[in-house]
Amino acid sequence: MQTTSPPRRGFDDAEFSQRTANAQALMADAGLAGLLVMTEAEVRYFTGFHTLFWQSPTRPWFVFVPATGKPIAIIPEIGAALMRGCWIDDIRTWSAPAPHDDGISLLTDLLLPVAKQGATIGIMKGHETQLRMPLADWEQLMATLPGLGIGDATGLVQGLRMVKSTAEIEKLSQICGIGSAAFAKVPEIIHAGQPLEESFRAFRIAAIEAGADDVPYLVGGADRGGYADVISPPSRRPLQAGDVLMLDTGCTWDGYFCDFDRNWAIGTADDAARRAYDVLWRATEAGIAAAKPGNTCSDLFQAMSAVIAEMDTSGGDVGRLGHGLGMQLTEQPSHAAFDTTVLTENMVLTIEPSLSYGNGLMMVHEENIVVSANGARLLTTRAVPDLPVIG
Amino acid sequence: MQTTSPPRRGFDDAEFSQRTANAQALMADAGLAGLLVMTEAEVRYFTGFHTLFWQSPTRPWFVFVPATGKPIAIIPEIGAALMRGCWIDDIRTWSAPAPHDDGISLLTDLLLPVAKQGATIGIMKGHETQLRMPLADWEQLMATLPGLGIGDATGLVQGLRMVKSTAEIEKLSQICGIGSAAFAKVPEIIHAGQPLEESFRAFRIAAIEAGADDVPYLVGGADRGGYADVISPPSRRPLQAGDVLMLDTGCTWDGYFCDFDRNWAIGTADDAARRAYDVLWRATEAGIAAAKPGNTCSDLFQAMSAVIAEMDTSGGDVGRLGHGLGMQLTEQPSHAAFDTTVLTENMVLTIEPSLSYGNGLMMVHEENIVVSANGARLLTTRAVPDLPVIG
Repeated sequence: MQTTSPPRRGFDDAEFSQRTANAQALMADAGLAGLLVMTEAEVRYFTGFHTLFWQSPTRPWFVFVPATGKPIAIIPEIGAALMRGCWIDDIRTWSAPAPHDDGISLLTDLLLPVAKQGATIGIMKGHETQLRMPLADWEQLMATLPGLGIGDATGLVQGLRMVKSTAEIEKLSQICGIGSAAFAKVPEIIHAGQPLEESFRAFRIAAIEAGADDVPYLVGGADRGGYADVISPPSRRPLQAGDVLMLDTGCTWDGYFCDFDRNWAIGTADDAARRAYDVLWRATEAGIAAAKPGNTCSDLFQAMSAVIAEMDTSGGDVGRLGHGLGMQLTEQPSHAAFDTTVLTENMVLTIEPSLSYGNGLMMVHEENIVVSANGARLLTTRAVPDLPVIG
Repeated sequence: MQTTSPPRRGFDDAEFSQRTANAQALMADAGLAGLLVMTEAEVRYFTGFHTLFWQSPTRPWFVFVPATGKPIAIIPEIGAALMRGCWIDDIRTWSAPAPHDDGISLLTDLLLPVAKQGATIGIMKGHETQLRMPLADWEQLMATLPGLGIGDATGLVQGLRMVKSTAEIEKLSQICGIGSAAFAKVPEIIHAGQPLEESFRAFRIAAIEAGADDVPYLVGGADRGGYADVISPPSRRPLQAGDVLMLDTGCTWDGYFCDFDRNWAIGTADDAARRAYDVLWRATEAGIAAAKPGNTCSDLFQAMSAVIAEMDTSGGDVGRLGHGLGMQLTEQPSHAAFDTTVLTENMVLTIEPSLSYGNGLMMVHEENIVVSANGARLLTTRAVPDLPVIG
């Protein structure tokens, strides 16, 4: 059911060697003798290791980027066959789970020479990070290697990942096109009387039929005149005339996400909902116009906020009006007053204004763009300018 | 397309108060003045907060279970509306993301009185856990509250979650039935000549049509005479006569997982694949027979291993032959020689023997059961005893 031939899956080895070289240049500047990553996106970024098996929380996975040379993987044996197909050469495994030593002695062996030199390695320990290994094992590692310095490499890695390669943008464009095709099907598959749970089910199938590998993220809401919550699973309540329905989806293709939403009125729309839609559509236009190299995320936030203020001056409480997009549903940077990240070419971003109106209702709009030299290029098919009425 | 009426979604408040009371009794025994959890499954376990929004790694979420009374949530404002629908009363929010204080001052305020008493709280820091907040924020919290004791509550929480309630078992039974219905469709939807990627797509749609909310986990492999890797995404290679195909899925219903697999020969099967299938089918029987109250996970592992040894004496390297199942694809306990957990009624488990054969091939079988007073009760429709041959 796809209309265009998809791009090639995976990446050339050159992509990974370039990513590694870029990291190593920044590591040298920061005085880091290595970089230890253990989260899905970062392990995949440096090695190409791509599997849904991360959904099992049981086992830790470690990749060490040395100052020079290819990354080194210390991983559970169950991942060895898949990792051997990746571009790296040094793969050290253990039979996991192993409660008394889940990779820690292998990690200690690797880091001991670095610790003996009193050198510092980077890990991601800052904002928007998690420690994907048991804290007790981390504490043990630190106690075993007292000479090892630990630096915060959060900004280093997030900075690299923010700017996408040509191949990454092809994948993101592909999944944004698939998501757009799935949203275009909504008037055919969603209708009054349908329990919202069934609307979700119909949308998931439409997205997969349109070419999505998966629909890991699908949230939304529907109620009379609007919705109050944008992260809930669906209820069994049937859609009714006068409802505003919102669906927000993160579909994936080859491990890359789209993340955008659409709104529809069921049967008829009231003035408040129409007006909220119009304000947000124009706020999105303002965000798209501001998304050019040299502007900051804060500029983008202010551009959208100025339009939103026509209807809602609360400033909102969802924390931001969009974010980076890539291997994860949400990535750095944040379109927020606090984020002074300067936009550069090849950043892929969501433009996501929201507002509160009426009696506790809210509305969200969202598009996905890539920043080019000339300004934003839409990856999604732009939402129509007036609240569409369906079924 | 579902054949039976699904159970009710969600839980009664009594379920959450019972879980909390159970935890508080164990906390009292362990001398813990509170329990701090921050991972999706644990936050949901104690509050009922259920959303796919956890796929955004941006924001931390905290739930504190005090020594008495209901849990207290410290969460990003974007989750407030959903959390207010849950059974707890004390919900403290901040506008996240906030790089300089992502909930840490709220958490400090909550824990300060506990720290002043020199009391100890539990967190999950042991085997199979992760720290779902920035390590730097954790270090800051510890530095700000030097009087606060930190105990390891991993076993306490995992022990509670291992034993399922009646309502949880209904949900698990529901999704195992849906997964079984989807696997039963495979002979109609998967055939020689179909690229494996399209086979995956067809299976996902079948599972959603059969009633799954989602198919978050789908891995598998297919190649001549067998497969070598059990965690890969699909290739574009068309299925061919003589292939053995395996699909392993974690579908969800109301936030609960099935996790099981099936094998098929395409067109024709060779003797080695038939024999591997037969050995694993009987190993599964042995595992099911051993899954009764009083036996240990190690007993279960040994029962399966004895049959597997007919064909493969390597002991395997995937680390275990099954595990717990519930809100997560894989949970405690592990069917492994190291795990002496005693099986009790209402544990829900996978029985998952695997073996290596031929030139680097492997095969896996898997069923899902609940432990009852009389032994295992299958939640999945048992695989046929001989390797099935399809189109």
